[in-house]
Amino acid sequence: MLNPYYISGFVDGEGCFSITINSRKKPRKGCYVRLLFEIELREDDKDILERIQRTLGCGYIYRLDYEKYDKWLPHYKLKVSNFSDIYGKVIPFFRNYPLQAKKKENFDAFCKVAELIKQRKHIGDKAVERIRGMRDNLSTKRRIIS
Amino acid sequence: MLNPYYISGFVDGEGCFSITINSRKKPRKGCYVRLLFEIELREDDKDILERIQRTLGCGYIYRLDYEKYDKWLPHYKLKVSNFSDIYGKVIPFFRNYPLQAKKKENFDAFCKVAELIKQRKHIGDKAVERIRGMRDNLSTKRRIIS
Repeated sequence: MLNPYYISGFVDGEGCFSITINSRKKPRKGCYVRLLFEIELREDDKDILERIQRTLGCGYIYRLDYEKYDKWLPHYKLKVSNFSDIYGKVIPFFRNYPLQAKKKENFDAFCKVAELIKQRKHIGDKAVERIRGMRDNLSTKRRIIS
Repeated sequence: MLNPYYISGFVDGEGCFSITINSRKKPRKGCYVRLLFEIELREDDKDILERIQRTLGCGYIYRLDYEKYDKWLPHYKLKVSNFSDIYGKVIPFFRNYPLQAKKKENFDAFCKVAELIKQRKHIGDKAVERIRGMRDNLSTKRRIIS
């Protein structure tokens, strides 16, 4: 098993905590909010993804060929999209072994949205707009800072 | 202070161990071998570089403006180029808290070259060619794998 602090360092560099808002097609109109935790690495680092997956105890790994882009090498991605895994495994892990770099701001927003989803407060136009604001505020802030 | 395992995880994602071979200008003809340890991050993550610098106890930090490239944001770099610091601080640190991803191959070659420098076996055409071979073999291997 990997040292958990090693994972928080690695994820601070290479991981991605994202809040996605998708439009629903008929018959279920409206938007829905989803959380994703992902790490994408080159093919020759697939092993480290498998070790992180084992340590976290969740997620699935798949190959990305990028065949359209000649110069892009094949990659592998570890993805956690199941909400129970995110709420019950990913978030507690990074609360115990905290991120230290700028990514912790993304993680904090990610946790707040997870709490809203847990309490079923992420449904409906107003809720989605509030979440969109939290997400966009984060990206604007990063643009201003850097 | 940062947890040392956090640093090895972060460096496995974001760090760079490089072996450089430069041509000397007159009057000291020939080539010389140099080792560099570097981490380059966006401006808003300068703080983490300072914390890594404090934990390692070496290196200097400087700003990179990339003014020529409109879309490139300013970055900061932590750089260790002093051989005593590399041999006495950087290498022992990552031996105690090992890298786990593909970067450990670069680190292993970096350590072998450091040993040659320590023993003054890095001087002269033959030695430089041997070191160039070690470095190029590493990049070729990576190209083949990925």
